[in-house]
Amino acid sequence: MPRVAKNSMDEETFIAELLRPLATETPARHLQDDGACLRCPAGYELAVTTDMLLADIHFLRDGAPEDIAFKALAVNLSDLAAMGAEPYAYQLAMSLTPAQDREWLERFTDELSRVQQHYGCFLSGGDTVRGGELLILSITAHGLVPEGEALHRSGAVPGDVICATGTIGDAALGLAHAGGMLDIDEAHGRHLQRRYWRPEPRLLMGPWLRGRASACLDISDGLLMDCQRLCTASGAGAVLELEALPLSQAAKAAKERHPALFPECLSAGDDYELLFTLPAETATPALLASSPVTVTPIGVMTEGAEATLRDGQGQAVELISTGYSHC
Amino acid sequence: MPRVAKNSMDEETFIAELLRPLATETPARHLQDDGACLRCPAGYELAVTTDMLLADIHFLRDGAPEDIAFKALAVNLSDLAAMGAEPYAYQLAMSLTPAQDREWLERFTDELSRVQQHYGCFLSGGDTVRGGELLILSITAHGLVPEGEALHRSGAVPGDVICATGTIGDAALGLAHAGGMLDIDEAHGRHLQRRYWRPEPRLLMGPWLRGRASACLDISDGLLMDCQRLCTASGAGAVLELEALPLSQAAKAAKERHPALFPECLSAGDDYELLFTLPAETATPALLASSPVTVTPIGVMTEGAEATLRDGQGQAVELISTGYSHC
Repeated sequence: MPRVAKNSMDEETFIAELLRPLATETPARHLQDDGACLRCPAGYELAVTTDMLLADIHFLRDGAPEDIAFKALAVNLSDLAAMGAEPYAYQLAMSLTPAQDREWLERFTDELSRVQQHYGCFLSGGDTVRGGELLILSITAHGLVPEGEALHRSGAVPGDVICATGTIGDAALGLAHAGGMLDIDEAHGRHLQRRYWRPEPRLLMGPWLRGRASACLDISDGLLMDCQRLCTASGAGAVLELEALPLSQAAKAAKERHPALFPECLSAGDDYELLFTLPAETATPALLASSPVTVTPIGVMTEGAEATLRDGQGQAVELISTGYSHC
Repeated sequence: MPRVAKNSMDEETFIAELLRPLATETPARHLQDDGACLRCPAGYELAVTTDMLLADIHFLRDGAPEDIAFKALAVNLSDLAAMGAEPYAYQLAMSLTPAQDREWLERFTDELSRVQQHYGCFLSGGDTVRGGELLILSITAHGLVPEGEALHRSGAVPGDVICATGTIGDAALGLAHAGGMLDIDEAHGRHLQRRYWRPEPRLLMGPWLRGRASACLDISDGLLMDCQRLCTASGAGAVLELEALPLSQAAKAAKERHPALFPECLSAGDDYELLFTLPAETATPALLASSPVTVTPIGVMTEGAEATLRDGQGQAVELISTGYSHC
């Protein structure tokens, strides 16, 4: 049952008191105009990406406003990371429900303030509406990337080594843990839930990947589905090695206790790690060790058109679902 | 009652078959990457604005998909017009319901294609989600404006002449007509409903207004409310003359038959005309006549902080509502 607003907030007050302080840079002019005027320095392009998040679909409705704020901005910044761009500014559109009362909005915007400061961007504008029954957030993030150096999904060729940042599957396990379906120790549970709510956009990877990776995207809908997208864009196939997928300590503990959740959870989405390819001759252990975020080689690009997952015996692993399709 | 999808469409097909053809320019790279790379020519800034539209709130749920497409894009382009910017690219985020089946989506994207071609912009990316019960569209539009020449809401000073493009009140009357509340002849009814569904973004005004208007915004939420925003941003007051407000022939006919709807309908929102100010010494009849869109002087900026509406006898007109507040 939706909470009834004890202390609702009209649009003008919300903008004036809570959103305006987030519009910290000149182009936003204190959210005073019909839009912002972003500047793009010579030699740069403006990377732009949009992610829309629905309560119950993309995040748990009862999540803390801080977690919802973090996730909504982070998944957009993750797309910028996948393009090799540096965060610049973001537009925020919100369809609010009565549950988003003053306290909720204060907590939400306080966290946005922290997140934007941490990643070096600012609120440039947006829109706020009421009347729907579901909280919906739509963010359009803008980043700067040196001209011609943006990373693309196309460009991988057979033989390229496929790598992933960080660890895979934590977010899906975190969601299972939040739903009471995972019996593991508390610290591991907290880690996994944190990975669900607070994905780390891999922005540090940009300078390392630009001019080096042949293709890149972020793993948002599931490792196998996103790898398939990279394959389709590149006109090639891929073989991923199940045994090579990097697991966190918490995921290893979960695997021990709940083997039935594997390997499905490894392709369930919400990882927000980067999946990228490197020409084989460059993908030396020394190079991989020089990355600012831990990267693991997890497979190889092939001829063909399909992304497949292979177990330790070289057999194809059939998943019930290859990932999350939104529409 | 929502229609049940006879012929639904998954996200990948929707993108591949219907959205990709709208991504006509190189920066969008056929919607193949995690985002687009927009270029901003030297000497320009990138104007960016976001409007989110909810079924039942911002448009009639049973509207034709063509009308919904037109309105969603046009209201965003209207914000670009208010900044004096030329359309460039737009991001489209949609929360779809079962009523958005293949036929609906085809009609919607066909119209988007026509509208973007007409106004000279392209789809650069976006997101599509399902799971909500209400159709929601969120567009972030990007435009180009010569550096330092964007129009702002601030800058009007006491004595400046306040002008409006086109005619005021048609959209509110169109909505009343769609609801069967207006007994006027069919051609007038069609005109008013068209003005509700198909606001004309006043993009032609950009070159004329830049360097000339002291302040500008678009009238989206109601003449008086939006004039108040201009006043607040400028730190001044305004007096608008009720008798001076430009009415269409259809609105005049409606006024004849339904005087009770006036003057409320003149501040009910959805006009998407531009409201702007000119220094008094420049606002000559010859100058106004040179505008590419009909403009009408409707008032004057004053000392103080309030926007007021005054009747032919010089009395303040009290409205039940000064406009539409979304939140």
